[in-house]
Amino acid sequence: MKKLEQLYEGKAKKVFATDDPAVVLVDYKDDATAEDGRKKGTIAGKGAVNNRVTNHLMQLLEKHGVPTHFVRELSDRETLVKRVTIIPLEVIVRNIAAGSLAKRLGLAEGARMGKTVLEFCYKDDALGDPMVNDYHIAAMGWATPEELALISRYSMKVNEVLTAYLKELNVELIDFKLEFGKTAGGAIVLADEISPDTCRFWDSVTHEKLDKDRFRRDMGGVEDAYNEILKRLMGE
Amino acid sequence: MKKLEQLYEGKAKKVFATDDPAVVLVDYKDDATAEDGRKKGTIAGKGAVNNRVTNHLMQLLEKHGVPTHFVRELSDRETLVKRVTIIPLEVIVRNIAAGSLAKRLGLAEGARMGKTVLEFCYKDDALGDPMVNDYHIAAMGWATPEELALISRYSMKVNEVLTAYLKELNVELIDFKLEFGKTAGGAIVLADEISPDTCRFWDSVTHEKLDKDRFRRDMGGVEDAYNEILKRLMGE
Repeated sequence: MKKLEQLYEGKAKKVFATDDPAVVLVDYKDDATAEDGRKKGTIAGKGAVNNRVTNHLMQLLEKHGVPTHFVRELSDRETLVKRVTIIPLEVIVRNIAAGSLAKRLGLAEGARMGKTVLEFCYKDDALGDPMVNDYHIAAMGWATPEELALISRYSMKVNEVLTAYLKELNVELIDFKLEFGKTAGGAIVLADEISPDTCRFWDSVTHEKLDKDRFRRDMGGVEDAYNEILKRLMGE
Repeated sequence: MKKLEQLYEGKAKKVFATDDPAVVLVDYKDDATAEDGRKKGTIAGKGAVNNRVTNHLMQLLEKHGVPTHFVRELSDRETLVKRVTIIPLEVIVRNIAAGSLAKRLGLAEGARMGKTVLEFCYKDDALGDPMVNDYHIAAMGWATPEELALISRYSMKVNEVLTAYLKELNVELIDFKLEFGKTAGGAIVLADEISPDTCRFWDSVTHEKLDKDRFRRDMGGVEDAYNEILKRLMGE
């Protein structure tokens, strides 16, 4: 499969066309941003870690019945995925209060909540990715109620599978962000990435942060944290 | 019924005990606040308008099957209501984009949406009444899923009844905020007020604002707008 013209460059990935119109090539970068793009930096090796972690977890999820955009890993940073139209929603699944939720509801970081919380944000950097609910989504036509129900079901399944899998690796899954896309055939599949950029991973014993919060909060040890996650997942 | 000790003073109302433990007395003030209390002022006669408008609309809603806390109007500013425990949620019903929704989603004020939108905010001034969804509400125990479904159903019914009623008076119901309470017997009833403080009312023909936005946005004619709403409702 040939790597053709660049279709899109995002904050953490570039996307290229291929000679198959149903497949695109994702190329992961080391660039890191936070605070809606106001904070910029580089995390050495991040692209390779996120590519390999994402592919590993997407294949795990496929085995458990969650359809994903994953096709084939090409190299440390490059992966072929199904071409999809991204549904303009960030789905956030929260097991433990942290980050914006802790701030918004006045909870201590690490507070246990009575239940897993699902949130939707409208993907729009200029608006700051505002939180929305199912009424907004239906009124604005971002997804049909049936699509939203399916996305919610898949997201809860992702949480169930990943929480159990990571627990065995002494990693607690605090929260994470998913994006979904629609294929040309109309199927909803998990897209984007699942990595220390998009998940909060805490060591189960020490509660040490093994994710992008180390970059966001200038905690140091950023590269080590990303490599630690890769190591635990790959057993390397 | 005797007016006994003051139980509570809010931004727009005082609440007094009575000699019936199941009934409290609400006394409406002319005080007005906006921007989470940072903007303060007085709207002459507002207390009387809001008391009479609220009671008029609550009685209309009772006739249409929505249970409310209303018991009896005592004077221009004083009303007896059922004693309830307030559910700590603001329910916002939106027919047309305006205010915080227009800003949050980048919509023009007055934009029509595909459907009526229902939002829940957690009542907490210190946190700025953050928007929450049904997962947050269940996880935090603010209402059970069954209570929330009932509150949503009542809120949509309130919208249906008030929209039709106000249309006949040449008033367009843009959006409004409701609060619900639970009686000692466990019944969920509509509480708080329904007034130009808590609704956006636009003249159907001129689109002139007949509500608290005139105070929030320093538009002038605040008292006239409140009196115009009272006049249209009462036919006075």
